[in-house]
Amino acid sequence: MYSFANDYSEGAHERILEELTRTARRQTGCYGIDEYCDAARAAIQQYLQSPASEIHFLVGGSQTNLIVATMVLRPHQGMVSAASGHVNVHESGAIEATGHKVLALPCDEQGKLTAQQVDDYIQGHYDDDTAEHMVQPGMVYISNPTENGTIYTKQELTELKAVCEKWKIPLYMDGARLGCALTSHANDLTLSDLAKLTDIFYIGGTKMGALFGEALVINDARWAADFRSIMKQRGGMLAKGKLLGIQFHQLFQDGLYYQLAEYANKQARRLEEGVKKLGYGFLVETPTNQIFPILPKTVLQRLSDRYSWSFWSKVDDQHDAIRLCTSWATREDMVEAFLADLAEAGE
Amino acid sequence: MYSFANDYSEGAHERILEELTRTARRQTGCYGIDEYCDAARAAIQQYLQSPASEIHFLVGGSQTNLIVATMVLRPHQGMVSAASGHVNVHESGAIEATGHKVLALPCDEQGKLTAQQVDDYIQGHYDDDTAEHMVQPGMVYISNPTENGTIYTKQELTELKAVCEKWKIPLYMDGARLGCALTSHANDLTLSDLAKLTDIFYIGGTKMGALFGEALVINDARWAADFRSIMKQRGGMLAKGKLLGIQFHQLFQDGLYYQLAEYANKQARRLEEGVKKLGYGFLVETPTNQIFPILPKTVLQRLSDRYSWSFWSKVDDQHDAIRLCTSWATREDMVEAFLADLAEAGE
Amino acid sequence: MYSFANDYSEGAHERILEELTRTARRQTGCYGIDEYCDAARAAIQQYLQSPASEIHFLVGGSQTNLIVATMVLRPHQGMVSAASGHVNVHESGAIEATGHKVLALPCDEQGKLTAQQVDDYIQGHYDDDTAEHMVQPGMVYISNPTENGTIYTKQELTELKAVCEKWKIPLYMDGARLGCALTSHANDLTLSDLAKLTDIFYIGGTKMGALFGEALVINDARWAADFRSIMKQRGGMLAKGKLLGIQFHQLFQDGLYYQLAEYANKQARRLEEGVKKLGYGFLVETPTNQIFPILPKTVLQRLSDRYSWSFWSKVDDQHDAIRLCTSWATREDMVEAFLADLAEAGE
Amino acid sequence: MYSFANDYSEGAHERILEELTRTARRQTGCYGIDEYCDAARAAIQQYLQSPASEIHFLVGGSQTNLIVATMVLRPHQGMVSAASGHVNVHESGAIEATGHKVLALPCDEQGKLTAQQVDDYIQGHYDDDTAEHMVQPGMVYISNPTENGTIYTKQELTELKAVCEKWKIPLYMDGARLGCALTSHANDLTLSDLAKLTDIFYIGGTKMGALFGEALVINDARWAADFRSIMKQRGGMLAKGKLLGIQFHQLFQDGLYYQLAEYANKQARRLEEGVKKLGYGFLVETPTNQIFPILPKTVLQRLSDRYSWSFWSKVDDQHDAIRLCTSWATREDMVEAFLADLAEAGE
Repeated sequence: MYSFANDYSEGAHERILEELTRTARRQTGCYGIDEYCDAARAAIQQYLQSPASEIHFLVGGSQTNLIVATMVLRPHQGMVSAASGHVNVHESGAIEATGHKVLALPCDEQGKLTAQQVDDYIQGHYDDDTAEHMVQPGMVYISNPTENGTIYTKQELTELKAVCEKWKIPLYMDGARLGCALTSHANDLTLSDLAKLTDIFYIGGTKMGALFGEALVINDARWAADFRSIMKQRGGMLAKGKLLGIQFHQLFQDGLYYQLAEYANKQARRLEEGVKKLGYGFLVETPTNQIFPILPKTVLQRLSDRYSWSFWSKVDDQHDAIRLCTSWATREDMVEAFLADLAEAGE
Repeated sequence: MYSFANDYSEGAHERILEELTRTARRQTGCYGIDEYCDAARAAIQQYLQSPASEIHFLVGGSQTNLIVATMVLRPHQGMVSAASGHVNVHESGAIEATGHKVLALPCDEQGKLTAQQVDDYIQGHYDDDTAEHMVQPGMVYISNPTENGTIYTKQELTELKAVCEKWKIPLYMDGARLGCALTSHANDLTLSDLAKLTDIFYIGGTKMGALFGEALVINDARWAADFRSIMKQRGGMLAKGKLLGIQFHQLFQDGLYYQLAEYANKQARRLEEGVKKLGYGFLVETPTNQIFPILPKTVLQRLSDRYSWSFWSKVDDQHDAIRLCTSWATREDMVEAFLADLAEAGE
Repeated sequence: MYSFANDYSEGAHERILEELTRTARRQTGCYGIDEYCDAARAAIQQYLQSPASEIHFLVGGSQTNLIVATMVLRPHQGMVSAASGHVNVHESGAIEATGHKVLALPCDEQGKLTAQQVDDYIQGHYDDDTAEHMVQPGMVYISNPTENGTIYTKQELTELKAVCEKWKIPLYMDGARLGCALTSHANDLTLSDLAKLTDIFYIGGTKMGALFGEALVINDARWAADFRSIMKQRGGMLAKGKLLGIQFHQLFQDGLYYQLAEYANKQARRLEEGVKKLGYGFLVETPTNQIFPILPKTVLQRLSDRYSWSFWSKVDDQHDAIRLCTSWATREDMVEAFLADLAEAGE
Repeated sequence: MYSFANDYSEGAHERILEELTRTARRQTGCYGIDEYCDAARAAIQQYLQSPASEIHFLVGGSQTNLIVATMVLRPHQGMVSAASGHVNVHESGAIEATGHKVLALPCDEQGKLTAQQVDDYIQGHYDDDTAEHMVQPGMVYISNPTENGTIYTKQELTELKAVCEKWKIPLYMDGARLGCALTSHANDLTLSDLAKLTDIFYIGGTKMGALFGEALVINDARWAADFRSIMKQRGGMLAKGKLLGIQFHQLFQDGLYYQLAEYANKQARRLEEGVKKLGYGFLVETPTNQIFPILPKTVLQRLSDRYSWSFWSKVDDQHDAIRLCTSWATREDMVEAFLADLAEAGE
């Protein structure tokens, strides 16, 4: 049984485990104030090139999102998101539990927000006579790649940032799989661009080869003042903060983060091409490590004892769209095996 | 420079890191549903002997406390705690951020709640004509060991549990350093007792030799129904939940947890005896891995470039009480060195 | 300038003010425990015929809704509502501020939820593999009349209640304008029916001739235990609770509530017929005190210095839908004047 | 049976009811934007003399306190209060339900905070190595009169304000019975002083002769930006806002507010002198409308079928301290009757 169900079924890259092992009995400072966290920050800054940005390390993505919402939003404000956004659908109401509404805007299978759409929405809010009785848009949330594996171009992000500046609200990017965006063949953004084109974003580790961990980058100092207390309050401050520092240091000191993401993307492309060659279509075309083929249920049935995936949506009575997800640890031989078995199952 | 400042300055025991390394590329289920978590649960149950208890794994202690408060308390209820309790002082208002008041009862240097005190307080609440306008006591929080390193006896815990049952509210024990309580020379409680004498408790891993992690034991099924959704909502569900399973499996499959705690206690006793032999007293006598000697400031000044500790309280103009904390990784040679240096500094 | 903008522009019916004046210096109990509240409860029970139901009095509708959400929902649960529901749009995020998501279901211009739609939604939730990561439907919110002035039939309500029972969640009805539903020509429900067909509902006073006030009826005792403490906590307990008792006693002791609502409906019908006679259509046909004519912008422009109304939605470049709202205090002569002026403006 | 139990057992002064009656069918704007609210603001400003201050009207005191906390505090901040403060004891955890800890400082029977005490506390917070893990003091709450009927002098308030400015946090005064402070023989503060010496305060109406209502005065514009949306969100925006405007206009257009408070104080002095003359002492000496005599239980027993009061505290086995509270509506003949009966009961 081999899983293409997600990119967090495995543990972590060996280099990370070696360093954790090597340092097992070293004493350091706690709560994210230690030499490994400092080294990780410096390593990330090589790519970020934004000395004014603050970098904090957190354990998981939902935790990061809810802490950012807590830090940024005034009590009467909400978080603008695509309806398909992780914060709107798959965090058990984490944002609402901080007291804030997710202001969900409709989106298509691309799962993206457009600058025009956000601008129209906010304009509409303030044009409404009853705006005072409505949740005020207080920040914009996007993810890159999106839930649907698509990515934002530099042009799109520049436009979104301009709209946010027009309305004086921050743009926040969830980068749970950011490596796969930045190393995509379709990408024209760098980490350094993100320091300029977002107010806050995070570099996901959990899905990109770390045991766990997300590096939150706060580009606008206005948001950073209270961060550590809020992080502690929401249960997000790791006692042995160095565990996050060690991991991100390993990932960024010499580009391992990019290599692992590139590897995941490469396996996804291999799967994508193989599926296409067999004549199947896709729910949406994506340039990252998640692909969404539409396959006959009969075929899926035949494969289900050897492979697992995520069901995505029903297309028609005979066909489902599924998600195949690759990772830094996906085995190339299993990609080939899957494609061969898929070919056979479709005969 | 050697630190006795706390028990989370080091990483984790080698056995844990070996197993994490060995399993680095194994695919498993996610979010705490995998074979390692199952194995860890079975290993803990060897000691717990309480098949009806549910065991969940979380990353940190404040996170665990705030999730338990969220799960247990009705909106108008508060958490009864000793004034010195971690939830009242050192979690940046995590409990209040879930909407609930910490009902702090006075305590002495022992840092313990007594059954009589809790009963009187709750009786007083319901006797008050204005009880409806006051926060209703909804659960009792204790920690074992307490913040001050003391422990509860089986008799004391039995009485506290009886008071909680009288008032139909759960008793919750924070076991951040539970190993050090259970292996203390003064202890008469077992894990199996805790399954009967508390409604909910947690077995701390972070401070007991794990990289991180706490095993929450829910003995009363009434509280468990919604647990996983609430855990997710509060950012406490680890994607690679197996990391917690692997650690607790290692700690409990053959008693490593107890050995590590016993080791920490032993170093604390060694320090305690050495300090006593030099004629110094203690703020409070403790039978676990935290000791609180009262030392002249001049002496502390002389040691401060070679050792670190936690300042605890000012005793008088010449003396401070400090906390020395040992761990599974405390070096015996450094304990001896500290005592020798302390002797010299006091001359 | 005469306003048809809403039904809370005026004060209160004279009978209410006379009784408030008559009792101005009488001493009574406080916080809703007094003889006037008792009398009001008894008066409502004449119609309710549900001795097991508890009746509490609150000041306003948003306050009532947020207190009900607080009382009913577990932390990980949300409130199912039509997308156009007041709780979803016009309460500044009051529900989210209690920590709960509004689960908004699409609706048409009728603004109603159907039993089928709710059942499908909840079934879909539990069928989803990731349900644990999604907000659990914890209650169903409807309003009667809806935001759009339509009403539920006994059949529709019976079906909705059956779905709620199937999923073991309460059905809550916001009755801000309940009188106008119950006295509508299209209505087949009684207050006594609502005691059986909802778990909780409220009888709106603010929009029905009181100075302010809503009578919350809790039919299922399971929800009532903690109500008064939660009401106090959320700022909803009026010190001089008798003010609510006095008002609802006046409204229900001899049917004044129904008379005032009937009067408001009658003026709306008069407006509706007059508008129809002039050849104009409606966005949605309603049987209560809100009507939604579609009128040429030029006509509206001509009337705008003598009348006010609520803009509802743009229909096309030449036409807007507006809301005309009548009340217990709407002047018949002004209804006639408006229709005459409308006729003239359309020539 | 006559009650001295509190100052909200009666309705409202006749002038208020006359004006409510006179305006019962007048159409006005809603939600606090109408000519009566404007007139009330202007009337208050005659005394306030602070054109930059914003004035908003709310229904009740707990509601006002929780909305101010929501508006002012950052997520990790708490509200400093005397341990006996209303927010700490008698609001069912309303502040905590907004997510914020009440940081309770010890106080004596006077129920006051001193500038020195607040300064020491905040200094201690920032001096603590673990301040980041502790709730940050974010505002100071006092009430005037206090819960115990005492009042702040101009000197004391000036010093408290200076400490708040030193630490850059706002000073908030709960003025539920403000009239009784301002008209006390011991008072040297004016409404105009409060505009300078607090950041936010409220002028209580509910306990001072209104049906209900509190006028919140926001002196520092920084806090006012989001106020109305937050007020709406927390259920504090009254649809018929003019009801508050009408009441405060009546109370302030020609000094009725002061006259009513003066009357209540006068009756309290009369009671106080009578009690003293009979040889009884007081738990605390107060210059406002609450007095706290210490009386033999046997005497109280004898009076209990003709008078009611609030039990305050047990003094010894034979004596209780009670609270006698007068109001704008207290009958002079009943004051005399009570004193005569007390004399007789003590024989």
